[in-house]
Amino acid sequence: MSDETVGGELAAEADGAGEKAQSSRDAERLELLRQAAAGAGVDAVVLTPAATMTWLLGHDFEAHERLFLLIVPTADEAVAVVPALEEANFRGAAPAVGSVHLWDDADGPEKAAAAALKCLGKTSRVAVEPLSLRYMEFEHLRRELPRAKIESAEEIVSELRLKKSDEEAALMKRASKIAEAALEFTLRDVRPGRKEIEIASKLSSELLRRGGGGISFGPIVLSGPKSALPHGVPDEREMQEGEFLLIDFGTSFGGYHCDITRTFVVSGSPTDRMREVYESVLQANIRGVAASRPGVTYDYVHKNCQANLHARRFKDFMTHRTGHGLGLEIHEPPSVMAGNDDIVEQGAVFTIEPGLYLDGWGGVRIEDNIRVTEQGCELLTSSPRELRILGA
Amino acid sequence: MSDETVGGELAAEADGAGEKAQSSRDAERLELLRQAAAGAGVDAVVLTPAATMTWLLGHDFEAHERLFLLIVPTADEAVAVVPALEEANFRGAAPAVGSVHLWDDADGPEKAAAAALKCLGKTSRVAVEPLSLRYMEFEHLRRELPRAKIESAEEIVSELRLKKSDEEAALMKRASKIAEAALEFTLRDVRPGRKEIEIASKLSSELLRRGGGGISFGPIVLSGPKSALPHGVPDEREMQEGEFLLIDFGTSFGGYHCDITRTFVVSGSPTDRMREVYESVLQANIRGVAASRPGVTYDYVHKNCQANLHARRFKDFMTHRTGHGLGLEIHEPPSVMAGNDDIVEQGAVFTIEPGLYLDGWGGVRIEDNIRVTEQGCELLTSSPRELRILGA
Repeated sequence: MSDETVGGELAAEADGAGEKAQSSRDAERLELLRQAAAGAGVDAVVLTPAATMTWLLGHDFEAHERLFLLIVPTADEAVAVVPALEEANFRGAAPAVGSVHLWDDADGPEKAAAAALKCLGKTSRVAVEPLSLRYMEFEHLRRELPRAKIESAEEIVSELRLKKSDEEAALMKRASKIAEAALEFTLRDVRPGRKEIEIASKLSSELLRRGGGGISFGPIVLSGPKSALPHGVPDEREMQEGEFLLIDFGTSFGGYHCDITRTFVVSGSPTDRMREVYESVLQANIRGVAASRPGVTYDYVHKNCQANLHARRFKDFMTHRTGHGLGLEIHEPPSVMAGNDDIVEQGAVFTIEPGLYLDGWGGVRIEDNIRVTEQGCELLTSSPRELRILGA
Repeated sequence: MSDETVGGELAAEADGAGEKAQSSRDAERLELLRQAAAGAGVDAVVLTPAATMTWLLGHDFEAHERLFLLIVPTADEAVAVVPALEEANFRGAAPAVGSVHLWDDADGPEKAAAAALKCLGKTSRVAVEPLSLRYMEFEHLRRELPRAKIESAEEIVSELRLKKSDEEAALMKRASKIAEAALEFTLRDVRPGRKEIEIASKLSSELLRRGGGGISFGPIVLSGPKSALPHGVPDEREMQEGEFLLIDFGTSFGGYHCDITRTFVVSGSPTDRMREVYESVLQANIRGVAASRPGVTYDYVHKNCQANLHARRFKDFMTHRTGHGLGLEIHEPPSVMAGNDDIVEQGAVFTIEPGLYLDGWGGVRIEDNIRVTEQGCELLTSSPRELRILGA
């Protein structure tokens, strides 16, 4: 039920929308979307409350079970289907959307949906977001536009959202600063006998106390052999001296996320094997960051990141891709992985997060967030990457 | 990226799954789902990571951008498509699902999806969850089963999840206890000059510090005229003496949510008009709770809740339904609203949340969570409902 204004900006005032429409944020971004959609040959993009709508309107609406659609025809004004409860927020955020079809719980959304979707031709090519549009919304489209061709808006949208502006990067840096301060404060509590869940809970609460816009996920706090589980769950397990402690967490600021992983040793001293594994991952991280620059492919970044693991014959223990895009979503394009021959472009923000996972023994992951610059890339995260022994 | 074990239970151990399958939690609940699906005449239910999968497996998997399907044929063994990263968690939570088709980022999900969906006949009737299944998953179904009839699993699923057991109710009461303690602690900070966002942030952090499983939403903290916005957003606004302060928030415990709203006055003294509006909403809340018992309709509960508002001619200022179901999701069936002639059944858990919103002046909402008993209902929430003046 939480909506929030995003990007540190206040949405344009609703009053005087007529005069302002040409210059409002939503009008500008709707026009960018229209151009991208026209370039892809579709007749309209239909969005639901999710990151792309947030990017367009500067306000994070939530979908829940109520129908909420923003219909953006390539050659016409945008039209919306909005639950009556959200009217004030929507009109404030979207002064350029003149035609708003409201519905309330007593009447249901059918009429509003029918009236709004009438603006599209019966055989339109309609692009939707595959990871946001649900079967519920799809059924409305199918009912009102039975002959329309529905297809993925993924490329249209990622083209718009991939390159982050200086303003967006600043928000992500601020999210990282909050996250890293919360982490440092939480790490003071780490010692043998502490439970994973205690550290996870403390970290969550610190993220919020320091102004983080939420807990992006988890946090994942895994100790000892559990650190080998890339998607393990923190529980009552008590951490032991000399074990690995892997912490993967994030927060947001102004709607934009960070996603950071560090792996530590819980007091005592690490074994030579632990040092070797840690060092391999650190070198992979460094190589991945160094390889990230405009003009290479994501496959190239991935292979450079992995090269060091290969040399040390740890290849089989890195079980996931090198990284993922980051922004208004925690996972968004690009995918930094083998076989992705898309070209790295200036402004792209993604994670570099090599990891090695030795079943039953333990794992190490070191994850940073980078933004591609003219010549190379800049780190948005700044937490130290060297092996640290905590609570010593 | 956070998965968690749900319901206070540990999933059955993966080892010895063959012997244990008959009695494991997932086997029992899969059988309940099969029976409900057979009763509805469908050939299979296809689930993605969301509340129903959590209810089945006792583990809260997250979907993200990776394909993750649990396919439950009415007359056959369940089959799954699982990202390789989630293999250990899935096998631990779902020992009764013998056929697990894994895929990793390098290969993509297509082959696993094709192999898994082969278990369904080409013209199957396949039920999916309209609020969980995304266009991404739908496209896989359409590609592999182009002639299947896809329909909504909503009734099948809500029949299973609607009635909460004593164990589930205990988790929801515990969530409420945590939430109410966090609220009381946070309220000590309320005084004229405090910003909405400060109170929201403090409340969030307290929910986590006290063991809440997360912040269910928001929290919504709205002062003065903003309290009239049912979906308003807390911001830098400083609360003033004698204003309303509306706080709508929740947390979870063991995966089960609470959802509570209280409206206060910020020091000073409320006007007669404020007292009158508050008293109307309080009476509506009390009547709604009193009307909730087995055998009546949800429409009846709604109308009883509203009756008092009608008498006072405030009818037009209650702009939403009386309440919604609550459990593993913050919003789930039933919908307590006009025209819902479904019968209230013992075990159902829902909110009673009347509100009055006077544009530009302010609003009051009082929201409790109830569980229907043999004769009437019990409150799961216990925060005082009388008008309170804070920071006086």
